[in-house]
Amino acid sequence: MTRPAPQPYRRIATEEAWAPAELLQRYRKLIAGNTLDDPGFNTMWGFYLAGTSERARHIERCMSDLDDIRLQHMEEAGIDMQVLALTAPGVHVLPREEAVAFARVANDELGDAVRRHPAKYAALAAIAPQDPEAAAREIERSVQTLGLKGVILNSHVQGEYLSDRKFWPIFEAAEAMDVPIYLHPNSPPKSMIGPMLECGLDGAIFGFGVETGMHALRLITSGVFDRFPKLQLMLGHMGEALPFWLYRLEYMHRATVNSKRYPAVQPLERSIGQVFRENILITNSGVAWEPAIRFTQQQLGADRVLYAMDYPYQYVIDEVKTLDAMDMPAADKAAFFEGNARRVFRL
Amino acid sequence: MTRPAPQPYRRIATEEAWAPAELLQRYRKLIAGNTLDDPGFNTMWGFYLAGTSERARHIERCMSDLDDIRLQHMEEAGIDMQVLALTAPGVHVLPREEAVAFARVANDELGDAVRRHPAKYAALAAIAPQDPEAAAREIERSVQTLGLKGVILNSHVQGEYLSDRKFWPIFEAAEAMDVPIYLHPNSPPKSMIGPMLECGLDGAIFGFGVETGMHALRLITSGVFDRFPKLQLMLGHMGEALPFWLYRLEYMHRATVNSKRYPAVQPLERSIGQVFRENILITNSGVAWEPAIRFTQQQLGADRVLYAMDYPYQYVIDEVKTLDAMDMPAADKAAFFEGNARRVFRL
Repeated sequence: MTRPAPQPYRRIATEEAWAPAELLQRYRKLIAGNTLDDPGFNTMWGFYLAGTSERARHIERCMSDLDDIRLQHMEEAGIDMQVLALTAPGVHVLPREEAVAFARVANDELGDAVRRHPAKYAALAAIAPQDPEAAAREIERSVQTLGLKGVILNSHVQGEYLSDRKFWPIFEAAEAMDVPIYLHPNSPPKSMIGPMLECGLDGAIFGFGVETGMHALRLITSGVFDRFPKLQLMLGHMGEALPFWLYRLEYMHRATVNSKRYPAVQPLERSIGQVFRENILITNSGVAWEPAIRFTQQQLGADRVLYAMDYPYQYVIDEVKTLDAMDMPAADKAAFFEGNARRVFRL
Repeated sequence: MTRPAPQPYRRIATEEAWAPAELLQRYRKLIAGNTLDDPGFNTMWGFYLAGTSERARHIERCMSDLDDIRLQHMEEAGIDMQVLALTAPGVHVLPREEAVAFARVANDELGDAVRRHPAKYAALAAIAPQDPEAAAREIERSVQTLGLKGVILNSHVQGEYLSDRKFWPIFEAAEAMDVPIYLHPNSPPKSMIGPMLECGLDGAIFGFGVETGMHALRLITSGVFDRFPKLQLMLGHMGEALPFWLYRLEYMHRATVNSKRYPAVQPLERSIGQVFRENILITNSGVAWEPAIRFTQQQLGADRVLYAMDYPYQYVIDEVKTLDAMDMPAADKAAFFEGNARRVFRL
C-alpha cells in the first residue's frame, strides 16, 4: 500500500475517535453487569470489547493510543492532523457525578496529547449533558484553560435529546466560547432501536444516521438556532443525509407548522434551508464519495463541507486517494481538506 | 393559477393516493375505540379524520373521489394519468380476515374506476400481508382479471416487516406476474416511533422515510432480490434518501458481513449498489427538486427515476411547472414523466 501523494493542501481529519482505556474498562463493567437498559450500547460495545473479529481487535487496539500506532497510521495515510474526540457514547452512559468527573479526566488527557503533539492533534471537549450547568462550565474550562477547539456531543443521553430546554446552557456556553458542537452518532435508544436491531441495521449502516439526523432536526425545529443564532453544529456522514432531504424538510415543516398539529412544531425565524446554510457544517466521515460531497457543497456552500476519516472505525488509505482525485475546483478541495477546518476550529 | 403548459411528454403521476370512504370509516372506528396499539396510526389518522385544519379537510375531501374533483385537479395540474394506490396503512391495520376481504373490495373498485376512465387511471393492487398466501392469490387476480398494473405495499404490518420469509409468497407472485411492488411509507411502529413522535417528526417530515427506508434495506439485506432477481421494488420520496446513502450502505454492509456480527446480515450475491441499479425504481413523490432527481438519475440510471405527485397529500401545481423546467436532456425528462412509467407498468 503506497502512501497518498503530497498535495497543495494539508489533510486535517475532523471526526477522529479516541477513548482512554479506563473508559473502555467502565464500558466492560456496564456490559458484564447488564446495568444499562440500552440494547444499542450493549450490542455495539459488547461486540467491540469482547470481539474476536479482525474489525473488533483493530478498533480496540487503536482507540486508546495517542503516541504510537495512531501517529504511524496518520503518516501512512497522509493525514497531517487529527481533530480528536471522545468516542460515542462518551460519558453519556455513566451515572451523573461519574460522568461529570470523567469528562474532566478525558479533557485533561486530550489537552496533554495536544501539548505533546501540537502539530498533529487538535481536540474537542467531552461533556456530561446529564448535568447541563457542569457541562457548560467544562466547555469554558476546556476552551480557555486546555485550548480545546470545540465540543463533542455523543447524541442522546440515555434516551433524552438536547431539544429539551434544560440542556440549553450547553448551547449558550458553546456560542459564548465561539466553538462548534460536533453532533456524533449514538446507537438509537431503546425507544426506537427495535426493528433496526432485529435485522442488524442498528449501527453505522443505518441506525446511527437515523438517530443523529433526528437529533439534529429536533435541535433545529425546537428553535435552538433562533435562540443561539451564531451557534455552529457539525454533522458527520454527509450530514446524516439531511442535505438530500432539504426540499422535503422545508415543505413538510411549513405544512406541519400551518396545520398546528404538534405543539412541538412552531414557526421558526428562518427556513430550515437557511439554518443549514448558516448554522450547520458537514463532514464526509465514512463517506469517501464525490457525488455526495459535491451535492452537499452545492446545497450548503463549499465553505461548509469538511474532510473526516472516522479513524479508527474506517481506516482506509485508498479513500484518501479517492478524495484527492475528486473533480473539483482546487480552492474548494483545499477548503474541504484544510481551509474550512482551520477556520472553524481556529487552528 | 395558470395550468402547466403542454410539453412533448404526457405526465403520468405514479404515487397517487385513494381510499374508499368505507375504509376511512373503519379507521374512524379504530381510533374512536382506541383499538390499535399503534401511536403513529392513531395520531395521523386522528388528525386527518377529526381535523378541522385546511390540510385535513382537503385530504378527506379528495381522498375517496375518483370521478369529479380528482379529474378536475388532474386537469388543472396538467396530470394526464394517475397510477392509483390504496393509501397507507391500507388494510394493514385491520384484522386478518377483514383485511383479506377488504383488499378485494378495494381492488374491485379500482378496476371499475380504470374501466370508467381508462385514459386517466391505472391502479396498483392492495394486499393483506397478514395472510401471505391470500395476498399472493389477490395479486394474481388483480393482474389477470382486473388489469391492475402492480402492487401497493403499505410497509410494516402491525410492526412486522416483509423481510420475514413467511411473507415471501407475495414477492413470488409479483415476480411471476411481472409487476412491480411499490413500497409506500407507513408511520413508524410503536417499537421505533417514540423519540420521533414526542417532537412531531414521526410523519412525512422524517419518520416515514426512516420507516420505509429501513423496510427497503431489510428486504435487500435479507436476500429477497437473491431469491427473486427479477422483482422490481419502487420507492417514493427520492428513494427515502437511500441513493444518497449508497456508499455507506455498501461499505458498512461489507464490513458487517465480514464481522459476522449479526446472523441476519449474510453475504449477498450482488452488491447493494447492483441491487439498486437492477431491482429498485425511485419516484420523486413529495420532492419536486431537481438536484435530488439528477443525483438519483446519475446513480441508478435515468430509466429508474419516475415522476409522482403524491396527490392529494401534496397537490401543488407549481411543482409541476418546476419539474417541467428542469435542466435535463429531453429524453431523460420524457422518461421521467412518461416513458419509464409506460415501461414499468406496461401502460
